[in-house]
Amino acid sequence: MRNIKLIIEYDGTNYSGWQIQKGKKVKTIQRILEKALEKVLCKKISLIGSARTDAGVHAQGQVANFKTEKKMKLQNLQKALNSLLPVDIVIIAIEEVPSDFHSRYSNRGKVYEYKILNSFFSSAFDHRFIWQVSYALDIKLMQKGSGYFLGEHDFSSFCAAGSGNKNKRCRIIKFKIKRKGEYYIFLIEGTNFLYKMVRNIVGTLVEVGRGKFQADGIRDILNKRDRNFAGPTAPAKGLTLIRVKY
Amino acid sequence: MRNIKLIIEYDGTNYSGWQIQKGKKVKTIQRILEKALEKVLCKKISLIGSARTDAGVHAQGQVANFKTEKKMKLQNLQKALNSLLPVDIVIIAIEEVPSDFHSRYSNRGKVYEYKILNSFFSSAFDHRFIWQVSYALDIKLMQKGSGYFLGEHDFSSFCAAGSGNKNKRCRIIKFKIKRKGEYYIFLIEGTNFLYKMVRNIVGTLVEVGRGKFQADGIRDILNKRDRNFAGPTAPAKGLTLIRVKY
Repeated sequence: MRNIKLIIEYDGTNYSGWQIQKGKKVKTIQRILEKALEKVLCKKISLIGSARTDAGVHAQGQVANFKTEKKMKLQNLQKALNSLLPVDIVIIAIEEVPSDFHSRYSNRGKVYEYKILNSFFSSAFDHRFIWQVSYALDIKLMQKGSGYFLGEHDFSSFCAAGSGNKNKRCRIIKFKIKRKGEYYIFLIEGTNFLYKMVRNIVGTLVEVGRGKFQADGIRDILNKRDRNFAGPTAPAKGLTLIRVKY
Repeated sequence: MRNIKLIIEYDGTNYSGWQIQKGKKVKTIQRILEKALEKVLCKKISLIGSARTDAGVHAQGQVANFKTEKKMKLQNLQKALNSLLPVDIVIIAIEEVPSDFHSRYSNRGKVYEYKILNSFFSSAFDHRFIWQVSYALDIKLMQKGSGYFLGEHDFSSFCAAGSGNKNKRCRIIKFKIKRKGEYYIFLIEGTNFLYKMVRNIVGTLVEVGRGKFQADGIRDILNKRDRNFAGPTAPAKGLTLIRVKY
């Protein structure tokens, strides 16, 4: 059996997230990809994704793998898949990997980007990929607040209910907030992330940036281990899975 | 009467261009804007656009003006319009201008951008705004070719049939082609442009870039004053009206 790794780019706007939802006939990225794979390989394929991105969340570098006996040339497989896939899902890379590679269990970390457009009005071009925030934000305060997330912590306060995440400990390796014109770009790298964790972190930092929360209050919120103390969940559409590290 | 100038950003993907087409009930940017203006100002408004962008063409800085007697604060008018407009049309600026300002007749020139993605596959994020070209392109040759367009010429060879443009003379002031990763960005500034002229220029330069036309053949094509000698028309979706100069 060959083990094939895909790197996938998608605009999540029109999908109910990555994961196939059992019993529900909803349009998910995984379902669309498995259907395309089945069409090309003439066999039912089960695809393992590295991250179960939520409805409306995007990816520049989602990783998934599947096993097949087919000897098809990978370049041809990629071409065939891309010709079948809708315009908002693209296989950007394909390679054969060792049989023990598992896109979820083998990964050592992920990089997410969150984009805020700080403006009175949205953007005709970017509206699918940003959270538009009208009130003034203090980047220095948000940067200070972001520092408290670095390292290993219990992230219960930033984990949505119904997560199924038993172990709430995560390690944040890097956290940068940059300004680019009217945009604020949050770049966060961690070994693992809980359900809606990045969006809860960004939603909380925005409360810091607009002066509703203190930057050093983040430490207290982490210590509470209770979702009720953190800020609101930032909208899905600003979030993009940038890279999965192995 | 007040004369109000709007700067408008739009994703042209879902529209049949800027201009209202008489007798046809098609969705154009001008129609959507006039409807929103009518709703806010409680009066039929006739909006004059600086450029009649084609179906599928985008704008970052389309300019339009209209006259009104209403004393409404411009910031409130902008807010009201943006709240009525669909997500892919945004009024990014509004100001009162002298009564003789006419967005089409007063303008001194326009800047257009054309974006090519030079890759085997399209982009899940950018597919609305690019022309995806799979074959190799030589930027040096395209840059050399672009130089022949500078200055004043008769652009009959680059003007689509049925243009209605009587005077085919145009002056190209700047023409830059840059590479940014897998993208080629064509930035062209001119005093006036004929029907589909930018797309015909880009389509012809791509023939130069892939080695089908000679770079210095551009001069001959211009001299022919015959559309049949130039290359194909590049797709509308790669084109964006960046700025209108007054």
